[in-house]
Amino acid sequence: MLKAIKIVLVGTSHPGNIGGVARAMKNMGLAELCLVAPRAQFPHPEAVLRSVGATDILDNVQIYASLEAAVADCTLVAGSSARSRHLPWPLLNPRELAGRLEEELVHSEHRIALVFGREDRGLSNEELHLCHLHVHIPCNPDFSSLNLAAAVQVLSYELRMAVLASQENSSPAEELPFGTEWDVPFASGEALEHYFEHLEKTLIEIDFHDPNKPRQLMSRLRRLYMRARPDTMEVNMLRGILTATQKAAKKSSESQ
Amino acid sequence: MLKAIKIVLVGTSHPGNIGGVARAMKNMGLAELCLVAPRAQFPHPEAVLRSVGATDILDNVQIYASLEAAVADCTLVAGSSARSRHLPWPLLNPRELAGRLEEELVHSEHRIALVFGREDRGLSNEELHLCHLHVHIPCNPDFSSLNLAAAVQVLSYELRMAVLASQENSSPAEELPFGTEWDVPFASGEALEHYFEHLEKTLIEIDFHDPNKPRQLMSRLRRLYMRARPDTMEVNMLRGILTATQKAAKKSSESQ
Repeated sequence: MLKAIKIVLVGTSHPGNIGGVARAMKNMGLAELCLVAPRAQFPHPEAVLRSVGATDILDNVQIYASLEAAVADCTLVAGSSARSRHLPWPLLNPRELAGRLEEELVHSEHRIALVFGREDRGLSNEELHLCHLHVHIPCNPDFSSLNLAAAVQVLSYELRMAVLASQENSSPAEELPFGTEWDVPFASGEALEHYFEHLEKTLIEIDFHDPNKPRQLMSRLRRLYMRARPDTMEVNMLRGILTATQKAAKKSSESQ
Repeated sequence: MLKAIKIVLVGTSHPGNIGGVARAMKNMGLAELCLVAPRAQFPHPEAVLRSVGATDILDNVQIYASLEAAVADCTLVAGSSARSRHLPWPLLNPRELAGRLEEELVHSEHRIALVFGREDRGLSNEELHLCHLHVHIPCNPDFSSLNLAAAVQVLSYELRMAVLASQENSSPAEELPFGTEWDVPFASGEALEHYFEHLEKTLIEIDFHDPNKPRQLMSRLRRLYMRARPDTMEVNMLRGILTATQKAAKKSSESQ
């Protein structure tokens, strides 16, 4: 199960932290590390030093220009976040996230991204809105700054504990969280982004949405659909509705 | 309960690790740090740097010549250990240790020490024998070297989780599932039914849905939105979109 998980670091400043993260990952059995627009130079000798031998992970790092691209193939994106945000979003602690691992990975195509933000200011709101859910490590409210590698360590530890527990329990089929096995794989990050683009375009065409006065419309819709976690068939259905809506609006505007 | 726990580092080589440990501790709400025969110079600027503000812990560090002296006031001593030892010893994982916290601390005089060994070779057998039990962080057997601060982070995290759980059990207030209190009440069953009626009507008007050939369309949409649990504001927003869609479709059909 750990093979289906990647760690994504956004805008990391210190090469040493990238090495520390690689070490924490390898220690817990994770292998795939992605960097999004790193501010640190990479590769860098300090990263190798701090990885203390996890150089295979560093050698296979993938670098992306945007978080959107990094999570395009992922069916669950969990972003590390401080507790309070302007717009409430589903928030789990690391154990609750790990507890969902098994059900998340019932389909072999499913892939999970754990996203960690900048050392100084975490993830932006736009980046957090690319996530299905947010993870918060419970910490001392008066001293909540966690080292990046330490945060990855805690999350990876919880995932490893969940995998070990699931191996122990793995004989008689356990009760699934849904009445039956979910019949269709979840939509990928890329498919969801295409849906949100299509949705925004359509809302403009039917005069419901004005991008110059966005209010929080798209954020609220995104939060709603991310919470529901549409599967691939549902996304096709939702896009079919949008296409039918556009057709209706187009006929209307053409005939005016 | 966290006040009754101290972290003991034996023979630490790198001052930076002492700072990293202080940061991890403070982050999880621990305060008391002891050094036993440190090989690193201490105090040291590198420790201050890596503590990122946990200097209060560094300022109050107590230094001992032997582990025996450091744990003299402790009622439970848990030593961090690799998995296999010549002489079998009670071995717990961090969660199992944390699960014992509450019963360990039924008496207010009880004090717990968590002992961590040298970066390069851990605790000696003599030191491990000063411990009531050994703690092992489950890790990749091919890459088991854990950074000292990372090990303290994982143990402290488990202790904090246990304390939070025990506080929750003792007060009725439930933990909130979102990053902040959800700002709007969930939609009532009635409001949702009105939404689904409105949705179906609209889908018929834009020629997406044929009630005579329903397939599973409405069931699938219902399942999707029920999963998301829309709040009242979200239902208003969704219905606003439907009304705008109907307006577009109406204009279109009137003009035909």
